[in-house]
Amino acid sequence: MSQAKIAVSVGLEYPTCYNIQSQIESLAAECFDYAVLPLVHPRFARHKDVDRYRVFGLPEAQVQSLSSICPQWLKLIVCDIQCKLKDFESKYVERRDHAKDLLHQELEYITYLGIPFIVVSLDQPDFCNFARTLYAHSEKNMSYTAWIKVPIRPVDTSMLRQQEEEPSSQDTWRWWNMFRSVTNYHSKFELALEINGDICDDHELTRWLGEPLRCVFIPTHVFQTNKAGYPVLNASLANFIKKILEKNLQVVIQGVNRHQSYLHYVQYMQYLKKSSHSDDPLSMAAQDFEDYLQFPLQPLANDLSSFTYEVFEKDPIKYIRYQEAVQQALLDRVSPEQADTVVTTIMVVGAGRGPLVTASLNAAKEANRKVRVYAVEKNMSAVVGLKYKKEEQWAQSDVTIVSEDMRTWNAPEKADIMVSELLGSFGDNELSPECLYAAQKYLKEDGISIPYNYTSYIAPIMSHKLFTQVKSSMIKEHQHPLYRFEQPYVVYQRNKYNIAPPQPCFTFVHPSEDKDPDNSRYTKATFIAEQDSVLHGIAGYFDTFLYKDINLSIHPDTLSPGLISWFPVLFPIHEPIQLKTNDEIEVHFWRLCDNVKVWYEWLVTKPTPSPIYNLDGRSYKMMKIL
Amino acid sequence: MSQAKIAVSVGLEYPTCYNIQSQIESLAAECFDYAVLPLVHPRFARHKDVDRYRVFGLPEAQVQSLSSICPQWLKLIVCDIQCKLKDFESKYVERRDHAKDLLHQELEYITYLGIPFIVVSLDQPDFCNFARTLYAHSEKNMSYTAWIKVPIRPVDTSMLRQQEEEPSSQDTWRWWNMFRSVTNYHSKFELALEINGDICDDHELTRWLGEPLRCVFIPTHVFQTNKAGYPVLNASLANFIKKILEKNLQVVIQGVNRHQSYLHYVQYMQYLKKSSHSDDPLSMAAQDFEDYLQFPLQPLANDLSSFTYEVFEKDPIKYIRYQEAVQQALLDRVSPEQADTVVTTIMVVGAGRGPLVTASLNAAKEANRKVRVYAVEKNMSAVVGLKYKKEEQWAQSDVTIVSEDMRTWNAPEKADIMVSELLGSFGDNELSPECLYAAQKYLKEDGISIPYNYTSYIAPIMSHKLFTQVKSSMIKEHQHPLYRFEQPYVVYQRNKYNIAPPQPCFTFVHPSEDKDPDNSRYTKATFIAEQDSVLHGIAGYFDTFLYKDINLSIHPDTLSPGLISWFPVLFPIHEPIQLKTNDEIEVHFWRLCDNVKVWYEWLVTKPTPSPIYNLDGRSYKMMKIL
Ligand SMILES: C[S@@+](CC[C@H](N)C(=O)[O-])C[C@H]1O[C@@H](n2cnc3c(N)ncnc32)[C@H](O)[C@@H]1O
Ligand SMILES: C[S@@+](CC[C@H](N)C(=O)[O-])C[C@H]1O[C@@H](n2cnc3c(N)ncnc32)[C@H](O)[C@@H]1O
Repeated sequence: MSQAKIAVSVGLEYPTCYNIQSQIESLAAECFDYAVLPLVHPRFARHKDVDRYRVFGLPEAQVQSLSSICPQWLKLIVCDIQCKLKDFESKYVERRDHAKDLLHQELEYITYLGIPFIVVSLDQPDFCNFARTLYAHSEKNMSYTAWIKVPIRPVDTSMLRQQEEEPSSQDTWRWWNMFRSVTNYHSKFELALEINGDICDDHELTRWLGEPLRCVFIPTHVFQTNKAGYPVLNASLANFIKKILEKNLQVVIQGVNRHQSYLHYVQYMQYLKKSSHSDDPLSMAAQDFEDYLQFPLQPLANDLSSFTYEVFEKDPIKYIRYQEAVQQALLDRVSPEQADTVVTTIMVVGAGRGPLVTASLNAAKEANRKVRVYAVEKNMSAVVGLKYKKEEQWAQSDVTIVSEDMRTWNAPEKADIMVSELLGSFGDNELSPECLYAAQKYLKEDGISIPYNYTSYIAPIMSHKLFTQVKSSMIKEHQHPLYRFEQPYVVYQRNKYNIAPPQPCFTFVHPSEDKDPDNSRYTKATFIAEQDSVLHGIAGYFDTFLYKDINLSIHPDTLSPGLISWFPVLFPIHEPIQLKTNDEIEVHFWRLCDNVKVWYEWLVTKPTPSPIYNLDGRSYKMMKIL
Repeated sequence: MSQAKIAVSVGLEYPTCYNIQSQIESLAAECFDYAVLPLVHPRFARHKDVDRYRVFGLPEAQVQSLSSICPQWLKLIVCDIQCKLKDFESKYVERRDHAKDLLHQELEYITYLGIPFIVVSLDQPDFCNFARTLYAHSEKNMSYTAWIKVPIRPVDTSMLRQQEEEPSSQDTWRWWNMFRSVTNYHSKFELALEINGDICDDHELTRWLGEPLRCVFIPTHVFQTNKAGYPVLNASLANFIKKILEKNLQVVIQGVNRHQSYLHYVQYMQYLKKSSHSDDPLSMAAQDFEDYLQFPLQPLANDLSSFTYEVFEKDPIKYIRYQEAVQQALLDRVSPEQADTVVTTIMVVGAGRGPLVTASLNAAKEANRKVRVYAVEKNMSAVVGLKYKKEEQWAQSDVTIVSEDMRTWNAPEKADIMVSELLGSFGDNELSPECLYAAQKYLKEDGISIPYNYTSYIAPIMSHKLFTQVKSSMIKEHQHPLYRFEQPYVVYQRNKYNIAPPQPCFTFVHPSEDKDPDNSRYTKATFIAEQDSVLHGIAGYFDTFLYKDINLSIHPDTLSPGLISWFPVLFPIHEPIQLKTNDEIEVHFWRLCDNVKVWYEWLVTKPTPSPIYNLDGRSYKMMKIL
């Protein structure tokens, strides 16, 4: 099997540090990228007053020679901290103090060496003294990042038996959850998951994906052996590891080699990485935007840039669906007999640089129907592009460019078909309702709106990463203290866990029967938490029906393959809400309007009440005026 | 019964507004202070498009004439808002919109008139749309304060039966709790409690005392009639109302007169107020300090002012106890036979302006024992006072003034008795341990320390008022975002509810057997919530034993009568934690020390985890250096 090394970073855990240099050398031979190893021997009895040279002398000697041979050695090492949580939580002050002194000693030495990553093991449910010591040290000393290694199953079950009244303490996710809460979501603590059990429930594994997972430790004993004698993982675990590798996270192999060579574990990881590799357009488009928060566009109030239009126009599926929709509508509206005589008036409202005009003209050609097209656009710069296209590409067709706000345009005739795409990631958040209900006055009584409806969806999510990003985003002066939590963010959500499936929120239908429809909405939705978890915010999606059953969707269950124009929305909350399995999560959403703006408000009332977010649009609003 | 009017403010609720002027006039006749009345007739069918004159014409006419006769009329009126919560929460948009329009109409008129107080009734468990409407209006329009009227029993039990699965919705405290959370503890919303049931469980009533109670509505039907024919309340209710009146809160009588005259209800309130009047020294001293947050003193790092010493010295009980303690110690230490020959060396360390020197000299006189007193004080200004006292008051006695830091003083001899008062509201928070363990080197082997021990206590509390005060306290620039929540505050806590009884936290004993004792501490305590409630912080207390069983205590259960020198402490948390009856509350407290400072850290881990507060003393610390 000779295959180019695929970008997958695999480490090897050594239980002891006998000779750093030779350990690092053997790494390379087996294709590992780095070693996880302790700098002190675990069995080396230490006392804080012992001369540090006795404790660290050996590594020091090795390190000094190593630095000259391999100046990059710091990148090849993750230091496995040797500390006993039991001692930290002992009822004896002396034991607690001793544990603290030793940890300090080790962390100081690590800092001195400049080792960038350390691993600490969270191997029991009580660890408040340990967490405070590490947290306090890390706050003062930001030189290293700590991987908090949590086993998926409790290791020492003897101590659990004592606590049997509390089955929750067996759920190691709760240990991690406690740790990160106590340390206030400190950005220098990342999660390292140890797959120390074979019972791998998909459901449960999924939950870890909402955490700031940096690394997965796989003990050699969880590998099976395939017919050819190579190490492999069972299907559910293999799947999980694929997801891990897809996200470019680390994997560390731990334990003695149980197969021919350590190399085979690495090769298996490379194989998994390769088979996980996905080249669907959405993942490609999202590559640089994973968990990256963006403010939603406001194409009504602000003029979009040429670049933004260009990005839209790259969508490989959106315009195809629109073309299908227009074509179908033309066929339904004009019988074959009338094909030569009847001219259908199509108005593309919010035409941008014209892709929907092109789609409409293509549709007419395919359907063999005659059309007159108006392209209405209020962005005067985009109109330049439309005029250019009219000359260059649409010269053979009947296209009129209208540089107007569709809401106030005095149309010379009424439309048979009105085509628009004024949709945001949350459906109505680019003010499609406000624009289309106003434009409706020049749509014929029996005219068709493409799209004819759209619905937003909401779902509770857990995402440590998104939460901390919102929390740390800059707050502008003179803003409401909750400002940063009162914004919807457009974000491709990768590092997250879906607490419960989405539910519909707001729906709009076009055209409206009502002359002056009310665009405000209120919805209350109740979700049931599938597992113990933490509510960090509400994800938002939408779907839309263009014509009949021709649709576009970013709802996870009905996602249109290939659609890349919209990432989901995140509505944050300012304080995480702890959830137990089967807890009800009650969420309220408002869409509210006044003369100049539209805004959302959101609120959680169960299991515990939050404040109303974005009251009266104080932090976020969509402006109706140009 | 002719009796001077005692300061008690009683209102009368009118179901309708038939003639404001005559209604106001009859108020005075019956000794009421103000009227609670609607400005629109509840049966007056309204529509938002109806000419407002039809709705408000009558009050407007009355108001215009009233303003000239009685310019103060606005102070005599609280407006009872007429709105139906059911409509706000209807599933029909039209009904919701209608309710919203009517509320806006009424609030606008109220604002126009400038009425400072309004009452709205929270009479059902669902009210999110109503709360949002009122909240949004109040945020824009701070001209009025709204009393949120909550019945102690659900009024409309029909709607509860539908929801029987949720018994919690019958607990109207939860309605209030939901309301104030949803409206983010808005300072313009205060609680008005309606005593609409006779079953008044003390326990349950107590919980309301943790809320921002402004007013209690008492329907005439809950009054009983005593032998003389006058209206009276049952014992538990009378007790509750006494507490209300003690806090100078409002009372409103509602419903038809069921006794000879409305006047008698008012007189009964005056009677209750009078009998509630307490003149114990603590309540007197606390009068201007109720729920008023103060930073703890740091008498070691900062020199106290003469005024502060003067306040201390007013304590009617502290110095008596000290004198008793010294006297007893002298008697125990020196037998009657040795009375004339043995001179006992007393060192008053941290003598301030000398009250403990005086107490010691008095004790010697009472005990008829000979003493030599050293008064050690590091505050050089206070030393001036000591010198003055030596000349003026202690001239006949053997008193030596020592202007030194007790920790570094090179004493000419060793003490038999070391007297000090270096205690803060949380016992050790003025660094008594650090000072006394250092001074111990000049205490004889068998010497006596007065006090010989002290213990701090912690207890979970609910207090809307204290929480909002901490939250709104100014944050200094460049401070940690949690800064204001990472301070202990000294505060006389009145508007609060004790969620569970206090438990011991840290104890120090003097003298120490250890030469170099470790003054850091760690304690974990578990409390059980007695009722559904909200954790807003941890109250702190202390007690101390001076000699044998002579003690001083601010622990609520063992409070030394008359002691006024110490108010309790509050350790806040930044986010309220919702509690259910029997929930475990697990709290961790650390006392930590380094070379220059001592600090506390605190943490809640159950029912839901908080961050560690004041990590590494980042926001609050007690400095050890002068
Ligand atoms: C989301 S873009 C879609 C552009 C183009 N149809 C496409 O699919 O690539 C929406 C377009 O509608 C335009 N628009 C928004 N509101 C408008 C209004 N009231 N009148 C005219 N154009 C409007 C914006 O300027 C923008 O070009
Ligand atoms: C709480 S006051 C008590 C004063 C006085 N004994 C009384 O009871 O009114 C504590 C006093 O101890 C003094 N003090 C604190 N630390 C001291 C130290 N290390 N050496 C000397 N005096 C100290 C302060 O200056 C202050 O006057």
